[in-house]
Amino acid sequence: MFIKIDEMKSLENLSGQSGVTIMKDLQQVFPDLGNLATKLHKEIYERDVLDLKQQEIITLSILIAQGNTESALKFHINAALHAGLTKEEIFEIILHAAPYTGFPRAINAVYAAHDIFIENGLVK
Amino acid sequence: MFIKIDEMKSLENLSGQSGVTIMKDLQQVFPDLGNLATKLHKEIYERDVLDLKQQEIITLSILIAQGNTESALKFHINAALHAGLTKEEIFEIILHAAPYTGFPRAINAVYAAHDIFIENGLVK
Amino acid sequence: MFIKIDEMKSLENLSGQSGVTIMKDLQQVFPDLGNLATKLHKEIYERDVLDLKQQEIITLSILIAQGNTESALKFHINAALHAGLTKEEIFEIILHAAPYTGFPRAINAVYAAHDIFIENGLVK
Amino acid sequence: MFIKIDEMKSLENLSGQSGVTIMKDLQQVFPDLGNLATKLHKEIYERDVLDLKQQEIITLSILIAQGNTESALKFHINAALHAGLTKEEIFEIILHAAPYTGFPRAINAVYAAHDIFIENGLVK
Amino acid sequence: MFIKIDEMKSLENLSGQSGVTIMKDLQQVFPDLGNLATKLHKEIYERDVLDLKQQEIITLSILIAQGNTESALKFHINAALHAGLTKEEIFEIILHAAPYTGFPRAINAVYAAHDIFIENGLVK
Amino acid sequence: MFIKIDEMKSLENLSGQSGVTIMKDLQQVFPDLGNLATKLHKEIYERDVLDLKQQEIITLSILIAQGNTESALKFHINAALHAGLTKEEIFEIILHAAPYTGFPRAINAVYAAHDIFIENGLVK
Repeated sequence: MFIKIDEMKSLENLSGQSGVTIMKDLQQVFPDLGNLATKLHKEIYERDVLDLKQQEIITLSILIAQGNTESALKFHINAALHAGLTKEEIFEIILHAAPYTGFPRAINAVYAAHDIFIENGLVK
Repeated sequence: MFIKIDEMKSLENLSGQSGVTIMKDLQQVFPDLGNLATKLHKEIYERDVLDLKQQEIITLSILIAQGNTESALKFHINAALHAGLTKEEIFEIILHAAPYTGFPRAINAVYAAHDIFIENGLVK
Repeated sequence: MFIKIDEMKSLENLSGQSGVTIMKDLQQVFPDLGNLATKLHKEIYERDVLDLKQQEIITLSILIAQGNTESALKFHINAALHAGLTKEEIFEIILHAAPYTGFPRAINAVYAAHDIFIENGLVK
Repeated sequence: MFIKIDEMKSLENLSGQSGVTIMKDLQQVFPDLGNLATKLHKEIYERDVLDLKQQEIITLSILIAQGNTESALKFHINAALHAGLTKEEIFEIILHAAPYTGFPRAINAVYAAHDIFIENGLVK
Repeated sequence: MFIKIDEMKSLENLSGQSGVTIMKDLQQVFPDLGNLATKLHKEIYERDVLDLKQQEIITLSILIAQGNTESALKFHINAALHAGLTKEEIFEIILHAAPYTGFPRAINAVYAAHDIFIENGLVK
Repeated sequence: MFIKIDEMKSLENLSGQSGVTIMKDLQQVFPDLGNLATKLHKEIYERDVLDLKQQEIITLSILIAQGNTESALKFHINAALHAGLTKEEIFEIILHAAPYTGFPRAINAVYAAHDIFIENGLVK
């Protein structure tokens, strides 16, 4: 039932230590869903048609559009930084999204990103 | 009231001739909205923090997630091809999106993309 | 089980003959849902805090935002014209909505409205 | 204006005491909406084509899919337990939902359910 | 790359022949997504905490709520009939959903179900 | 880069001092998005086909329907009061919305409005 070591290793490579912590927490609360999420995460992100930066751009764009995804959005803003996207590029994704998602969704995302940038010492 | 030449020029560079046709049609039906959309399109896509491929990845991801955006999705699958994304990369965006948007949204997008690939002679 | 006369009368006053036709069709397909929809419609629209124009502005705005509501949107564009809103005001509702809903939803609504305006002889 | 006794009785039978508290609070803040919600709740849940467990499965599935419905979701997780669904069945509803709603919505629901299970002494 | 026999067998048992046809079509258009969808479908529906009727109630409820899922909705109305849910129960799911999803989504679902009931000879 | 004086003046006229504070905060966190939002806000609200009350009815209706827009919703409940809509009219917008958006979205909006009414001394 528990996530196999190589899936956790994959998660750490892709999303950093904070990603591992979040998935381990989910796995404790509801192991079957935690396992399924981790397996799919590995399967999707280890594909090689798109690079990791492009993959995180897709994920962030979807989460901005959906709304009500604050914790997933913060997970993936961390993962995007881990993949090498800069603070400026992440903000730019949100600005580009605004005319498509509407500004309320975009403004929510700005503040979620700002929180993560503060946590990572990228803004004062 | 009518869209200025340089905005139409920008639209053609970014989205190809089919993008120009769609915007001209919108402008005839409701000029003020057509103009606002064209102005914003130019303002957003001519920014230089992200390249055009990355911008189209964002737009496609949002449209897949929102659903009920078939004509906008087809416009931007054309624009993505115009920006240099391949058929394989566009399908991969949809596959990556599926666990986030759910499979029904992703499957709709597969068929929209398939239609455009046929129109462009990319599949038989 | 069948809708009472005064509810159909109310529907005709509020939405015109095309509204009655749509509700009668729904009632034939699934009477219980047709009845519940008609009862709620009467209960909501006969309240007197807002006038009928304001009520249709609310309904249209919601339908534009939700997407995938083309038949309901066309029903209420007809009802909005019946309530005295002009073609220009209905288009303006859509333009005002665009930065909040995103442009893809707004553009869908423009074409739905355009179809109804043609049906009503308001555009050539 | 105030909710009739038999509607509150119905609400208590269907959703337990916590449901009554939530509806009474809504009724104090905005009585007309509280009354309409309570009347519809009674009308819908007292129908007899589906049993109460099936009805709560429907409601939970919708709330998971919509997102931004945390308080309604918690209300109905309580109501689902009251109707006889187990903790395992409620988690399973969320797992089954995940490939359709996407994982971010499902994970939000896991934590909402976990909170209610703790409140009800079902997890330590 | 191609779906394994036992996954197609599972799909036929769960959703009937029409389900197999739809998945085979998807697999031809974009095999990787077709395979992932089929694998997840098998994994989710073969779990045994909920029975097949309950699983289809969840799926239908989500698709009604999301909107813009007409082909998935029709797939699962067929699958729900295959699982033993009656025409009356499927309509009742939609009626129960209406106050949660809003009536426009519910009315769309009524007509999708009506089409499938006609195809299956359940209404004249 | 910074918002021009006349745009801030427009914002204050339309939304009151609390609107200015919110936009200035956004402008500090991500100036380019703050500027684009302020420019579009001015462009949309200074049009003269609809009056300011009608414009705020549209905006509120959309935000109720979208969900996950609590801070934007509170901004525009304040702006609606500033435009002359009463507490009763704002609650009525939410009640009218409920059968279209579903009750969970409407109930969220009731509590957001209630918070703003308390802040403005309109309820005890």
